Amino acid sequence: MLTAAYTGNATIDIAEAEPTPPAPGQVQLEVAYVGLCGTDLHILHGSMDARVQTPLVFGHEMSGTIASVGDGVEGWAPGDRVTVMPLAWDGTCPACLAGNQHICQNLDFIGIDSPGALQARWNVPADTLVALPADIAMDAAALVEPVAVAVHDVRRSELTPGDRVVVIGGGPIGVLIATVARAFGAEVAVIELDPARRAQIGALGFEALDPRETDQVAWVEQWTGGAGADVVFEVSGAAAAVLGATDLAKVRGTIVVVAIHPTPREINLQRVFWRELRILGARVYQRTDFERAVELIADGTIPTSVLITKVVPLAETRAAFDDLEGGRAMKVLVDVQAGQPAEEAAA
Amino acid sequence: MLTAAYTGNATIDIAEAEPTPPAPGQVQLEVAYVGLCGTDLHILHGSMDARVQTPLVFGHEMSGTIASVGDGVEGWAPGDRVTVMPLAWDGTCPACLAGNQHICQNLDFIGIDSPGALQARWNVPADTLVALPADIAMDAAALVEPVAVAVHDVRRSELTPGDRVVVIGGGPIGVLIATVARAFGAEVAVIELDPARRAQIGALGFEALDPRETDQVAWVEQWTGGAGADVVFEVSGAAAAVLGATDLAKVRGTIVVVAIHPTPREINLQRVFWRELRILGARVYQRTDFERAVELIADGTIPTSVLITKVVPLAETRAAFDDLEGGRAMKVLVDVQAGQPAEEAAA
Ligand SMILES: [Zn+2]
Ligand SMILES: [Zn+2]
Repeated sequence: MLTAAYTGNATIDIAEAEPTPPAPGQVQLEVAYVGLCGTDLHILHGSMDARVQTPLVFGHEMSGTIASVGDGVEGWAPGDRVTVMPLAWDGTCPACLAGNQHICQNLDFIGIDSPGALQARWNVPADTLVALPADIAMDAAALVEPVAVAVHDVRRSELTPGDRVVVIGGGPIGVLIATVARAFGAEVAVIELDPARRAQIGALGFEALDPRETDQVAWVEQWTGGAGADVVFEVSGAAAAVLGATDLAKVRGTIVVVAIHPTPREINLQRVFWRELRILGARVYQRTDFERAVELIADGTIPTSVLITKVVPLAETRAAFDDLEGGRAMKVLVDVQAGQPAEEAAA
Repeated sequence: MLTAAYTGNATIDIAEAEPTPPAPGQVQLEVAYVGLCGTDLHILHGSMDARVQTPLVFGHEMSGTIASVGDGVEGWAPGDRVTVMPLAWDGTCPACLAGNQHICQNLDFIGIDSPGALQARWNVPADTLVALPADIAMDAAALVEPVAVAVHDVRRSELTPGDRVVVIGGGPIGVLIATVARAFGAEVAVIELDPARRAQIGALGFEALDPRETDQVAWVEQWTGGAGADVVFEVSGAAAAVLGATDLAKVRGTIVVVAIHPTPREINLQRVFWRELRILGARVYQRTDFERAVELIADGTIPTSVLITKVVPLAETRAAFDDLEGGRAMKVLVDVQAGQPAEEAAA
């Protein structure tokens, strides 16, 4: 089978490998589609070299079908359509014991800390599987993982129907958060610098603001009758966005930190104090987020056909990253079976 | 009667004034004791000149007795022993309508935005009154307001019995937060630079850490079995404390921002994200906080006799601030009736 591995030095190696049978407790998946995301881009850039072991077959957003089942696996059978929640926790650390397994202090994020989905056959622990309904398209199902991120972020915010929500940053995750927040009953405005993205966000029915043209604070003030936003999602990763976010939130409002901020950021703590704001970190997801994400894709809430801007065969994974890099692609998928040696693609 | 007023320029003016009768809805209080706090010091330093109108009779931590009652006031009578929750809200702004009157967007903080308690007779709206039980000493009762701040901070943290709590900054508010957190069932460690304060904190039965001698992160890690603190209170106002606070908190732990940070502070958002931390602003108090504070003083939980380091007559208010300035005094009270013209002191 063909695999795509990060080998260091901004290089992706497309290599032949022999599938191994699933170990006890594992299933072997025939991977259908793999989505590429910002984290994969960070890996490719070498920003995570201290963490990853090369060569790393990466990829953690996927859809597929069970090819075979290891010893001791119950409830799953070959042919089942599934996606994977790519988290493996130790179950013994204080975070796990307190019920926060998804952010285990020794979390193995599959596809970063251990081999991922960019291979024709992929063995994963059976307890990572999430069932897909029959009416969900396999390409759309590769978006379950990023949608689960958005569901987790929105659940973490505890927004309630009717809330006014601001999303700072209208990239793939920002658009998914906006979409999920709307599905949860919120009215949503998205702040985004790029005009092409703003146009797309507007076409999806959201208010799309250019922060260089619109006084965001005044706009939000007006929009909310002088109150401020109930929830602000910081998805941009920009220092200026963090500093400004506190001015957008209402008294006792919530700011959810979704983006990665590699260095400490200045925050207006005077405003945090004055308005008794709440700032929440939100990372990865829990099983309920995956299940909700499957529903939101299956029922058409997530505009997957708009979001999937390109599908490439595995051999072109490197070129697909160039599209992502440009910042215009919303979601690029790798069709993992396309171009595989015939005997395996037929399996 | 004598009053103490901030007149600008780091000056306090002790002046004669005529008491005015209480307006409808008001009561006239004979003020017993007034506590001086950091906010009063900020006023004296001119840091709040943009906000205050001079001359300002200041003071907002107090105890007293009702001298007379204005028209339309029910449920209160001369002789009642009371303290005052010094907040007046408009009742009409979005924050008030959402039930957050205590941080009304147009809040009048009595003693800052309108005249305070450093006068023999003080007229206040009857709805600011909080009853004092017969068994509470009047000097101790002047601490109800700062204890209510601490109760509010602790309630905001949502700590539960058995939680491990770190208080960064062992000044008057830090010590009160530690004491209230312990009364709510937490185990508490206080981080404080000043050795005299550390000794006092230790004598009150708390773990007192010198951050220059102890590796706080390692200490907390050990103390909590590798988990991190359930709650961290940032009471120091120091930039370094804010930057370090995120390293002390457990997965899904809470950091409460109690101190005033006049300029934006750097926060390790990577850690906020990674551990799904929660940062909460906490400001002033609600009526329930005042009622709980009265109970905690009445039942001896708050070591008021240790905390009250000095009592001065009104005429020496200026000198009392010099003690506060030094940073060693925990709580300085002004005995407002001492030195008043005889006819009033006898009232
Ligand atoms: Zn764990
Ligand atoms: Zn109000």
